[in-house]
Amino acid sequence: MTKPRMFEKPSGVRDYLPEAVRKLRYIEREALHTMECWGYKQIITPTMEFYDTVGTASSTSDHKLFKLLNQRGTTMVLRSDMTAPIARVVSSLLGKEPFPIRLSYHANVFRSMEEEAGREAEFYQTGAELVGDGAPEADAEVIALAIACLKATGIDRFKVALGHHGYLQGLFEYTLPQGGEPQTRLKQCLVQRDVVGFREQVSALTVTAEQKERLEAVLQLRGGRSVLAAARGIADEPAMEASLLHLEQVWEVLEAYGVSEHIVLDLTMMGDFSYYTGMIFEGYAAEMGFPVMSGGRYDNLLQQFGRSAPATGFALKTTRIMDAISSDQQDNERGAAATIIHYDELCRREALTEAARLRAEGRIVITQRVDQLN
Amino acid sequence: MTKPRMFEKPSGVRDYLPEAVRKLRYIEREALHTMECWGYKQIITPTMEFYDTVGTASSTSDHKLFKLLNQRGTTMVLRSDMTAPIARVVSSLLGKEPFPIRLSYHANVFRSMEEEAGREAEFYQTGAELVGDGAPEADAEVIALAIACLKATGIDRFKVALGHHGYLQGLFEYTLPQGGEPQTRLKQCLVQRDVVGFREQVSALTVTAEQKERLEAVLQLRGGRSVLAAARGIADEPAMEASLLHLEQVWEVLEAYGVSEHIVLDLTMMGDFSYYTGMIFEGYAAEMGFPVMSGGRYDNLLQQFGRSAPATGFALKTTRIMDAISSDQQDNERGAAATIIHYDELCRREALTEAARLRAEGRIVITQRVDQLN
Repeated sequence: MTKPRMFEKPSGVRDYLPEAVRKLRYIEREALHTMECWGYKQIITPTMEFYDTVGTASSTSDHKLFKLLNQRGTTMVLRSDMTAPIARVVSSLLGKEPFPIRLSYHANVFRSMEEEAGREAEFYQTGAELVGDGAPEADAEVIALAIACLKATGIDRFKVALGHHGYLQGLFEYTLPQGGEPQTRLKQCLVQRDVVGFREQVSALTVTAEQKERLEAVLQLRGGRSVLAAARGIADEPAMEASLLHLEQVWEVLEAYGVSEHIVLDLTMMGDFSYYTGMIFEGYAAEMGFPVMSGGRYDNLLQQFGRSAPATGFALKTTRIMDAISSDQQDNERGAAATIIHYDELCRREALTEAARLRAEGRIVITQRVDQLN
Repeated sequence: MTKPRMFEKPSGVRDYLPEAVRKLRYIEREALHTMECWGYKQIITPTMEFYDTVGTASSTSDHKLFKLLNQRGTTMVLRSDMTAPIARVVSSLLGKEPFPIRLSYHANVFRSMEEEAGREAEFYQTGAELVGDGAPEADAEVIALAIACLKATGIDRFKVALGHHGYLQGLFEYTLPQGGEPQTRLKQCLVQRDVVGFREQVSALTVTAEQKERLEAVLQLRGGRSVLAAARGIADEPAMEASLLHLEQVWEVLEAYGVSEHIVLDLTMMGDFSYYTGMIFEGYAAEMGFPVMSGGRYDNLLQQFGRSAPATGFALKTTRIMDAISSDQQDNERGAAATIIHYDELCRREALTEAARLRAEGRIVITQRVDQLN
């Protein structure tokens, strides 16, 4: 191992210089303000959590967790998302608070392996969780709120892909009831959006031609509301039907919010979080190949912390939104070049008093004694 | 080792519920805004740094650093302060930027052993660094800025103790030129503000009665500007004299800022950061036994990162200021109870449209379908 040179920072983590900070802070402020107006109250949790609690409950695979030992020799993790920590708080400090509970956050999260793929090991998320409400209205609310946040941060052209964990799960149980390896491989292809791989896996399966057709057909289930009818045609199975009914109700509420124009149904979407149980969604900004936000329903997570409750929520990928928006919005706020007041010793008091007056008006003022400049 | 229960968080770290977040955010916003008006630009650095660079350059003793390994087996630390990371950025990314450079930050920092003393292992600091200016004006500027920040966050009654690392160091070199153990023990007493211990250590020294008197006399050097004259009487040594002259000039500039009423000279103050080289200061709020901010000059830190420059700065102890201020200030901003709009399926669209209208006015609105409440 070579020793890092003095001025180096670890790979996979960023320094944000003032211009980048202005963008990041702008997104943070606009998103949190939007969430506040929707009744979501902000919380902050520790950077470190116990590995045995939040670490294992989080959706991040074990090898991606940053682990460290505290002084007592207990294994800790740097949080990899905020959903599990919030589930812990709702079950402990907020244990007496009646449902529904609406919470928001802005936080940095950590994923150990990301740097190898050129991705970030530490990045920012701004998110909201609605805990204790299992209705389609709750799912539609977090989707509509996510859309409002994207708009508030200055992202105008975007699409939200909406899917359902239960539909795909139902289809796999129905066509491959023995589960195991083949199911896992098919799911992996969907997570990676590897259509060719999915088709290859399906054709290699030892199931009936009809079952193969059902599995292949799922790849077509992307588009407008008509996808729901097409999805019903694939199989008559209760879990699948319940998922489609739920999505239909969510869609209706999204229409009432006036945001359905942004929605694309995508029943091929797996969601990359292991704790999702219901609808899942991802937001894509125009001309960007990766999601700028994602979310979904996770009705089984809270019970792990001792307070069983349905829950739904999302996180903006704040650091990515930074790259998606122009600098114009934030610069308008404070075009604000600094005023520089040079002074010598004789007029020091006058100079500093004038600086104070201008600063009280919100102006940016730098004072500099000139007879000492080197 | 017992396994933590599911709902537990590690000791020494905090969950901030919405009311606490409002206070923390208020302090953060007011302090950063004040710093911005003084020409300080905000930066954000990674939570993790290399142990061999920022870790060893930081002022935190090794056993207090949180260490972890990255995927390549390199030792990393969770930053224990922001001064060393900023020195790294000034020497690398900002390497071409002309001096003086004014930077601000709000960040969480980590100290591993703190939890055992009931102190926090993770806490927030909001601070400013002025790099590349060695003049007394620069020191006075950061002190006056620190005072402006305290006032902006709602702390009205406070004192700033002002000392000088060079004065005490000069006195110790003069009276105990052999250095070693006795010097270290005396310094430790001063760091811990253990006057009785200091006296005991002095009387046990094998130096002349005159030298003992000089050392004892330092304990009296706390008070107004007259302390400088008293300090001059203790010994006629160039390093001590240079320190006193510098403090005198800083004092004059602080008078020009109109803030000297808040200053108490305290030449017994050691400062608990190993990198301080010049003036040091600490701010105390009325009726609180611990400092709410601290700072000082560190002219040797930057050269470790390859860009030699004088520097001075401070950090507000944001988490402690939270405990020092009342909730009144922030609550005035948004007394803001939420409006709750109940609706049934038939008037859903009207309800959601009305909610959107009120939110656009900045109101907090929660919508809840009532025919589904359990």
